[in-house]
Amino acid sequence: MISEDFKSMLNGKSVIRQLSEYATSRGAKIGYENVFDYSLGNPSVPTPKSFTDTMIKLLTKEDPMKLHGYSQSQGIPAVRAKHAEYLNKRFNMNYTGEHLFMTTGASGAIAHAVRAVTKPGDEVITIAPFFPEYVQYVNRTGAVLKPVSADTKTFQIDFDALKSAFNDKTAAVLINTPNNPSGAMYTAETLRTLSSLMYDMQKKFGHDIFLISDEPYREIVFDGQTAPYPAAYYDNTLTCYSYSKSLSIPGERIGYVAVNPRATDADIISVMCGQISRGIGHNCPPSIIQLAVSEVLGETADISVYETNMNILYDELTALGFEVVRPGGTFYIMPKALEADSVAFCNKAKEYDLILVPADSFGAPGFFRMAYCIDTEKVERSLIALRKFVSECYR
Amino acid sequence: MISEDFKSMLNGKSVIRQLSEYATSRGAKIGYENVFDYSLGNPSVPTPKSFTDTMIKLLTKEDPMKLHGYSQSQGIPAVRAKHAEYLNKRFNMNYTGEHLFMTTGASGAIAHAVRAVTKPGDEVITIAPFFPEYVQYVNRTGAVLKPVSADTKTFQIDFDALKSAFNDKTAAVLINTPNNPSGAMYTAETLRTLSSLMYDMQKKFGHDIFLISDEPYREIVFDGQTAPYPAAYYDNTLTCYSYSKSLSIPGERIGYVAVNPRATDADIISVMCGQISRGIGHNCPPSIIQLAVSEVLGETADISVYETNMNILYDELTALGFEVVRPGGTFYIMPKALEADSVAFCNKAKEYDLILVPADSFGAPGFFRMAYCIDTEKVERSLIALRKFVSECYR
Repeated sequence: MISEDFKSMLNGKSVIRQLSEYATSRGAKIGYENVFDYSLGNPSVPTPKSFTDTMIKLLTKEDPMKLHGYSQSQGIPAVRAKHAEYLNKRFNMNYTGEHLFMTTGASGAIAHAVRAVTKPGDEVITIAPFFPEYVQYVNRTGAVLKPVSADTKTFQIDFDALKSAFNDKTAAVLINTPNNPSGAMYTAETLRTLSSLMYDMQKKFGHDIFLISDEPYREIVFDGQTAPYPAAYYDNTLTCYSYSKSLSIPGERIGYVAVNPRATDADIISVMCGQISRGIGHNCPPSIIQLAVSEVLGETADISVYETNMNILYDELTALGFEVVRPGGTFYIMPKALEADSVAFCNKAKEYDLILVPADSFGAPGFFRMAYCIDTEKVERSLIALRKFVSECYR
Repeated sequence: MISEDFKSMLNGKSVIRQLSEYATSRGAKIGYENVFDYSLGNPSVPTPKSFTDTMIKLLTKEDPMKLHGYSQSQGIPAVRAKHAEYLNKRFNMNYTGEHLFMTTGASGAIAHAVRAVTKPGDEVITIAPFFPEYVQYVNRTGAVLKPVSADTKTFQIDFDALKSAFNDKTAAVLINTPNNPSGAMYTAETLRTLSSLMYDMQKKFGHDIFLISDEPYREIVFDGQTAPYPAAYYDNTLTCYSYSKSLSIPGERIGYVAVNPRATDADIISVMCGQISRGIGHNCPPSIIQLAVSEVLGETADISVYETNMNILYDELTALGFEVVRPGGTFYIMPKALEADSVAFCNKAKEYDLILVPADSFGAPGFFRMAYCIDTEKVERSLIALRKFVSECYR
């Protein structure tokens, strides 16, 4: 019989999806250029030419049997070795290929990482606001996602709140830096304090507690900064990455889990991930895409547009009196709404063809998210609507 | 803490994998051309030029934002519509794009199909011999795989055995035609009888029982035949397909679930699969590969070599006195070993550098599998070793 469990999920259409569909239908009416759609976190710049060129080179030069053949379930050995070398150089780590597990993007990475270090009934703490899919990613393994509020003045971690969330069932902490939806990038100070707290908690409860670090926005960082690398601060870290944002190839489903060589059982976790794959139909990410990304390590799409957009929006929001934390990276910003009910706030904004997402489903009621991965020209035009909206509804 | 559950799987290296690794190490010693490696079911012919050309065309002509963008979790709508049209024409069905769900190969397809129509504790019957990964594919969802022996004279279904396996917990029957490992292709007669029995069982137990039909070898069929299409015989059919074998692109992870439009809840199963994806990290198969296969529907690699190899092996095996069912398709053949203990038989064969796989792990003790997706020239040379092995060990 049809699974009632999954059937019941059909009614739970995500708010983002609903708003994005509204934007599309509204665009069909009034012209899409007149709808200021800040709903979807999809890259808005093309993949670098080097990625396309590499793909074409592989297709024209490589033996198709090798190119399109099965990779090991851990990923193509040469691809994993290149990743290890790149990460070592960049973050002063000492990975080998055996610590890498290639995945179908960050969702595939988290699907494996959570299963590798939890058992059903275990708790996985995450910091709210958080990417809503984490609920599915964690709870569908049998473990339980336990959100803890961030310090909403900075969107760094509220360590008192975090500390009180640990208990004997805590198997992992799942973080996302730079953060979707807040745009906050965890500082070295935050990561040092987090690491110290987690070492204490491991000691207190007498078992390993893993840090699962979700980093698809690692390269999209502003003000000339670089994102501190969580695995450098805490031994039991599984780093989850996706090339979706940095290379603007979200459809090609490619990322990895990197197991900190200093983690407990570091030498077997990637192999275990291969076993996990068998039960969830993962198998391995597409071979040609594995090979292509491994030849453009360190390159990115022209992501500077996101910083340009952020600055325009941050300045305007601040001028209009919004409480807003300046993002350290990503292509999101998450201001406080001008009334307590952010759903009502976003509904009113729709009247001005401003598509804003209430942050309730991210675990931050009272806030809203703007995904500014759109053309700068459109961001600029949206300011007029934004001013009008605020002055007519909240002045 | 590390998952003890998945850690315990590390000791269970598959027999096929062990033999294939032995073949590689033996090849390093005596020259790979001297090892007759019949262990691995990997395509041995290159992908058709049209697939490569399509990939290059997409990379050079398409807008990279569209080409590499996220598809819907059900798959790119135009890709699904093309699949529906193709399947309708070929099998006289009436799919629409809404009945299709694009997946990362057949393993991704089965991962979704099983979850869509079972709940934990349900039973999924399969016919032995069967692909050993079915155990993981089914049992890791919480349902339970229940193998039932085929008629070993023909490797068609033994309907008395099958009938007695149904009970109130039976949620699905999982078949694989043409079959890995036996090479048997289910006849129209087999599918008609199966359908009739399943309709009876649905009536008897008062609930839907789905047929999950795994068909990656659908195009590799011999003697000018075509494989009867199971969904044409039974309404509640979820057809699982992979392009791995037909297009020789196993690494690119592309396939689909096609929901019979006459199935119960046919209009929501594909959408439900999109929900299932969220919990297993599937998301969607690679966009460029979705687009590429949809432009070469109906094309295949030059798969005629498999029939050539089958005929050579079948004739020789028969001449040597093996009991063997002539394959109707695939690139496998599964003769009865010349002693009751097929593991001992295959171990002796290794002394002649013949790498044969005991079929015990396929649920067919006493038989062995040969994967003849290797060069014909090598198949021919292997006959000398095969004759020597049989005459020295069993005459």
